[in-house]
Amino acid sequence: MIILNGGSSSGKSGIVRCLQDLLPDPWLAFGVDSFVDALPAKMRGSGEGIEFTADGGVEVGADFRALEAAWMEGVAEMARAGARVVVDDVFLGGPASQQRWQKAIGALDVLWVGVRCDGTVATARELARGDRGRGMAALQAQVVHEGVLYDLEVNTTRTESLTCARTIAARVG
Amino acid sequence: MIILNGGSSSGKSGIVRCLQDLLPDPWLAFGVDSFVDALPAKMRGSGEGIEFTADGGVEVGADFRALEAAWMEGVAEMARAGARVVVDDVFLGGPASQQRWQKAIGALDVLWVGVRCDGTVATARELARGDRGRGMAALQAQVVHEGVLYDLEVNTTRTESLTCARTIAARVG
Amino acid sequence: MIILNGGSSSGKSGIVRCLQDLLPDPWLAFGVDSFVDALPAKMRGSGEGIEFTADGGVEVGADFRALEAAWMEGVAEMARAGARVVVDDVFLGGPASQQRWQKAIGALDVLWVGVRCDGTVATARELARGDRGRGMAALQAQVVHEGVLYDLEVNTTRTESLTCARTIAARVG
Amino acid sequence: MIILNGGSSSGKSGIVRCLQDLLPDPWLAFGVDSFVDALPAKMRGSGEGIEFTADGGVEVGADFRALEAAWMEGVAEMARAGARVVVDDVFLGGPASQQRWQKAIGALDVLWVGVRCDGTVATARELARGDRGRGMAALQAQVVHEGVLYDLEVNTTRTESLTCARTIAARVG
Repeated sequence: MIILNGGSSSGKSGIVRCLQDLLPDPWLAFGVDSFVDALPAKMRGSGEGIEFTADGGVEVGADFRALEAAWMEGVAEMARAGARVVVDDVFLGGPASQQRWQKAIGALDVLWVGVRCDGTVATARELARGDRGRGMAALQAQVVHEGVLYDLEVNTTRTESLTCARTIAARVG
Repeated sequence: MIILNGGSSSGKSGIVRCLQDLLPDPWLAFGVDSFVDALPAKMRGSGEGIEFTADGGVEVGADFRALEAAWMEGVAEMARAGARVVVDDVFLGGPASQQRWQKAIGALDVLWVGVRCDGTVATARELARGDRGRGMAALQAQVVHEGVLYDLEVNTTRTESLTCARTIAARVG
Repeated sequence: MIILNGGSSSGKSGIVRCLQDLLPDPWLAFGVDSFVDALPAKMRGSGEGIEFTADGGVEVGADFRALEAAWMEGVAEMARAGARVVVDDVFLGGPASQQRWQKAIGALDVLWVGVRCDGTVATARELARGDRGRGMAALQAQVVHEGVLYDLEVNTTRTESLTCARTIAARVG
Repeated sequence: MIILNGGSSSGKSGIVRCLQDLLPDPWLAFGVDSFVDALPAKMRGSGEGIEFTADGGVEVGADFRALEAAWMEGVAEMARAGARVVVDDVFLGGPASQQRWQKAIGALDVLWVGVRCDGTVATARELARGDRGRGMAALQAQVVHEGVLYDLEVNTTRTESLTCARTIAARVG
C-alpha cells in the first residue's frame, strides 16, 4: 500500500496515474476525490458533510468523519485481501489524519509519501486547471505536511509527475 | 447494504443518486464504474484487464477478477465498519457474479435489487447518453438477470428512476 | 438549422445526440451549455455574467447578453457557410429569446422545436442526473415556452428521446 | 482574436483558462476540442470524420474538413460581431492549417501564438493526465509548428501556464 499526501493541485493524481503505468503489477487507485464522489450529493455543502468556503477552506462534519473511517477500513481491507492499493489524500488534520489511516491499516506495510509543491506554483496550476475552488492550493500547501512523517518526499514544483512517480516506484519495486 | 444489478443504461446510477437523496441516513455509493476507474489505464483494453468489443461485448481477465474480489471484500468491510453502502453492478456472470458478492459480504444484511429495463428502451437511452459503447445495453438487458435471486425488482422501462428509488427506499426504511 | 427550446432536464441533449445519429448528413451541435463553457470562469457566479440562485433561478447580466449575441451571430454564420447546425437553448426570456435568435439567423431556414416535459418528471430526472442545480427543472418547465412559436413540439414526459428525435428527423429529411 | 497553436498536452487549455482570468475584458474560448465535441459521435472513428490511430496519429476526412471550414467562419464571425475570442488549435497541417484560419478571419486583427513544449515533457504530461490517446504528444510536438508564423511564442517545458499567459496578456492589453 502507498499513501500519498499533498495539498490541492500539488500533482497527486498525475503521480498516481504514472505510478499505475510504471509499476509492473496492477495497482488500484483510490483517494479523497473518489470518496467525496461516493457521498450523497446532499452532504456536499452541508454542516454534517463537507463544505467549501469562498476562500478555499474545507470543513468536514461528524457524518463525513464517520463515513471516512469506514471507508479507510474498507480500503485497507482491499490491501489485506491481496490488492495493491495506492491512495492519495489531503491531510487537512496533519498528524491526526495520518493517525486515522494508521488505525485502519494496522499491520499492513505502507509507504508514506509526501507530495510537496510550492504554494505559488500550486495556485498557478489551480487556475490553469479551472476545476477547483480557488484558494485551496495556497491554503493547503504547507499545513497538510505539518507534523506528518514520511518514508519519502517528492516535490512537483520543478519536477514532472512522471519523474516523481519514478522515484516512488524505485522504492516499491 | 443494498446491491443493485442491471444491464448498461438500465438506470442504476440514477436510482442510486435518488436513493442517496431519499434515505434519511447518509449512504456511500460504489459500483462497477468506480471500480473500473480505480484500475490502471493500461488494464482497459487488455486481455488481463477489461476489454470492450465493437459489438458491445465485455470481457474480463484474470487480473480483473483478482482485483475485483479484493475490492468486493473492501466494500463489504466498509459496511461492517458501520457505513451504509449501496452498490450498483452488472452481473455479466449472472449467478456466479452474485456468488462472488455473497462470498464477500458473508453474514451482512443485504437487499438484492434487480433493475430491469426493456432492451429496446435501454438501447434508445444508450444512444441518447452518448457516453457508452453501443450495443452494451441490448446485449446485457436479459443476460445479467438470468438465475439471479432478488428481494425486490424494479423496472425503468416506463417508470422514472425516482419512483423506482422510492419503492426501494420503502423496503430499507 | 434546427433550434430546440426546452427547460433544464427536459431531455434536449439526448434528443440532439439521437438526431446527430439519425440524420444521414453530419450536423454540428451547439447549445447554451457549450456557450457557458466558453465563458471565462470568473463570469460564472458574477452579476455581469451568469448566476445560479439557491432555488434554481438563473440570472444573466450585460456581459453575458453581449457575448451571447455575438455567439448567436457566429453560430448562424456556420450555417450560412454550409454546415448543418442543431442548437439547444433555454429561452429564459420566452419570445425575447426567440427574437434574439431570429435577429442572428436572418433569412436562414430554421426548424423551431419545442421540447416539453412535465415539471414533476423533469424534476425527478434532475435528481437522478445529479449534475444540475436543484430547482431549475421545475422553474423552467413552463416559462420557457410561454409566447414562443414552434414548427413542431415534442414531449419527453412519457416518450424516449430517440422517439422524439425520429419525429423531428422526419420533418428535416 | 488570439489563436494559439501547439501539440497535444503542450498546455494550451491551461494557458487559455489563465488568459480568461488575467484579461480584464471577457473573452470567449473555443478550440479543436470543443469543435470535435460538436461533431456527431458517429464521425469519431470514421474515415469521413476523425480517426485516432493506435500510435497517436490523427486522420481527418472530407466531412471533417468541410464542417471545420464552416466552424472557422462562424468563430471569426463572433469576433466580427464584437466578441473577444481566443482559440486553441493543433495545426496538424502546419502552414495549411494556418491558411485555413487566415481565410476565415480575413481582415480581423489576430495575435498568433505558438505554444511549444519539449516532446519528452509533453509525453510525460500526457501520461499524467490519463485522458488522451498515448503517443499524440510526441508525434505532434514538432510537426504542428513547422512553417507556421507567429507573433509570439511561449514554451511550457519549464514555465507554468500562468506565466506563459502573462506574457501573452501583456501583448494584448
